[in-house]
Amino acid sequence: MISTKEALNRIERAVKNEVVLTVELKNSLGCFLSEDIESPIDLPMFDQSAMDGYAIKLEDGNKFKTVGEIQAGDDASTVVLENNQAIKIFTGAMCPDSADLVCRIEDIEEMDNTILVNELPLEGANIRRKGEQIKKGDLALKKGHLVTPATIGFLANLGISKIKVFTSPKVAILSTGNELCPPGSILPIGKIYESNAVMLETALKQIDIEVIGSNKTLDTLQATIDNISELLSQSDILIITGGISVGDYDFVAEALEANDVEQIFHKVSQKPGKPFYFGTKDDKLVFALPGNPAAVMTCCYMYVLPAIQKFKGGGFEGLSSMELVSNSVIEKTNGREQFLKAFALGNEVSILEGQSSAMLHTFAEANAIVYLPAHTQLEKGDKVLTYKIY
Amino acid sequence: MISTKEALNRIERAVKNEVVLTVELKNSLGCFLSEDIESPIDLPMFDQSAMDGYAIKLEDGNKFKTVGEIQAGDDASTVVLENNQAIKIFTGAMCPDSADLVCRIEDIEEMDNTILVNELPLEGANIRRKGEQIKKGDLALKKGHLVTPATIGFLANLGISKIKVFTSPKVAILSTGNELCPPGSILPIGKIYESNAVMLETALKQIDIEVIGSNKTLDTLQATIDNISELLSQSDILIITGGISVGDYDFVAEALEANDVEQIFHKVSQKPGKPFYFGTKDDKLVFALPGNPAAVMTCCYMYVLPAIQKFKGGGFEGLSSMELVSNSVIEKTNGREQFLKAFALGNEVSILEGQSSAMLHTFAEANAIVYLPAHTQLEKGDKVLTYKIY
Repeated sequence: MISTKEALNRIERAVKNEVVLTVELKNSLGCFLSEDIESPIDLPMFDQSAMDGYAIKLEDGNKFKTVGEIQAGDDASTVVLENNQAIKIFTGAMCPDSADLVCRIEDIEEMDNTILVNELPLEGANIRRKGEQIKKGDLALKKGHLVTPATIGFLANLGISKIKVFTSPKVAILSTGNELCPPGSILPIGKIYESNAVMLETALKQIDIEVIGSNKTLDTLQATIDNISELLSQSDILIITGGISVGDYDFVAEALEANDVEQIFHKVSQKPGKPFYFGTKDDKLVFALPGNPAAVMTCCYMYVLPAIQKFKGGGFEGLSSMELVSNSVIEKTNGREQFLKAFALGNEVSILEGQSSAMLHTFAEANAIVYLPAHTQLEKGDKVLTYKIY
Repeated sequence: MISTKEALNRIERAVKNEVVLTVELKNSLGCFLSEDIESPIDLPMFDQSAMDGYAIKLEDGNKFKTVGEIQAGDDASTVVLENNQAIKIFTGAMCPDSADLVCRIEDIEEMDNTILVNELPLEGANIRRKGEQIKKGDLALKKGHLVTPATIGFLANLGISKIKVFTSPKVAILSTGNELCPPGSILPIGKIYESNAVMLETALKQIDIEVIGSNKTLDTLQATIDNISELLSQSDILIITGGISVGDYDFVAEALEANDVEQIFHKVSQKPGKPFYFGTKDDKLVFALPGNPAAVMTCCYMYVLPAIQKFKGGGFEGLSSMELVSNSVIEKTNGREQFLKAFALGNEVSILEGQSSAMLHTFAEANAIVYLPAHTQLEKGDKVLTYKIY
């Protein structure tokens, strides 16, 4: 069995996507830029007042003749201040070339046609210079930049309304198992309610990935082959749950082989999720996860999310992680690495009771996953690598 | 001027929402439960095999007669094992009442009609007992619980397909300013590209809030009154940008008063965002933010997000925060508290160059906001409160 690190390395190497899409800026949240963006303008586009006050041309003294006003949005390109003249100006308004500085309204005494400034600020004060934030032609954002709300605001500031980004993967889900029935129905004896598909769909929705197809199959070889074939033809990433262990009715590995999917690994030395299989067909990725729901959720967070992020043009990263201080004691683990449901608060983290891979109750109460290497004893106060779910 | 803490306290007290909605489970991501949920079933609903192997009824010895198989999904309620009988069983399958334990397939030698078990596990081994995860009628999740993908999986496991949650707020946006033009258009001299509305819309989209109306208004009192009146009638939360400072064309405070909005505070001792105004009209909330885009983004993250979370039934919390180690030196701050654009990596954080409230470029490069109290000097290695944007 390979380690989690080796599993991650092999997945990372398999992820490839160079397909580029032009999108409306407002629809680009969470995408990654597929090319550098140069600024099409100087920002600000003109010398701009940073305050409500008066734009002043100095000569001598601190008394100035007032000659009108410039509102935000006004074209002040023809305004010329003479020596010892001042013009009322507002935040964001165009500042005349002839102005030496802007004095804040709070620091001024206004009289009829004149103002008195008790303490003159330095030359250039309260003027945002043309191109001060960025100059036309300068690099605004680099290829690979994650589009956040502030990115969208910044590009809108530059007048940009469409950008080029890498495409998101088309993801399909296949749930296997004779025992699965939809929630809301009456359950025949021996059956259970299906939860993996809706759980995966919503985990993907959180990162703005819409699932393009979600099938269920009974545990027969032919049905499994047919469902894999259908979903693989439509998707970039196929996630399968169940049917990947050693039982007589676990047909997923065989059905993947029949679909010419190349096995990259099968089984990882981890808990939960030991039977985890990963394969590829050309550039398509197949994650075949064990059917236990907590194992599905863990493998989705730890392996599928980083793969999707890399596919979209970002780094091979999923949940954000950091070292937190453990409030819990864990007896020495065996040879498998462990992902433990946990609750993080501030700089501390507590490992929750109920770590069985069948138990989603614990996962529903968790806001973090703690990683423990193999053969590790955890004491209170130890630092542990913690992945934040929310 | 009030402190940021006082501003937060006053906003928290003003947020009220008791409206409840029944939603499909699959559409409930990010909502908060409006009532306790009791489990409608035992989970598992029956004794269940945790492994692929054999269910065994002990008598003596370690040799057992095999009598068929139970697949996952099969009704095994009529299966009765005699002493020293074993039945093949698969993970998730119903385990007969008469079975004493399940032995893993890996630990068994299979022969014609018999199996040999070299080392028998303890009684009850590898059987997940009926109701082991949760019993019918027990508390499954508490009122106020945040619905995550794992929550959805857990509730689906319980057969639940609809739940009751608190409603999300209807949010409207009003951008004020004669100088604003839409990105993608040709800019007349003196004008700038509008960025605040699309930035706020996408920041809200990230937390699954859809903006129900977004208006722009010129800087006249009547137009500002009319726009506020229209948007306030449709929304629970109104966010206004610009027009809240001391200039002659800042009509927002006056227009809010004309709309019977009660001022809760105006001006906070912070940088950026000093002119920030907050008011209420009955249970409706009005956030009037200064027009500088970095101030808008900061106030949205620090004040609007916690208010929305509380409205939805969660705690008054926005971005997640923690103490990180500073890589930067900041000279002693003045009397205002500061929110600084920063980049966090692991347990460390660097404060970025370019903190002007007009600069979105820095915000686009930031993944965190560092909070500094008033009159504070920051040295390398000091711990600082850091809010993670992503």
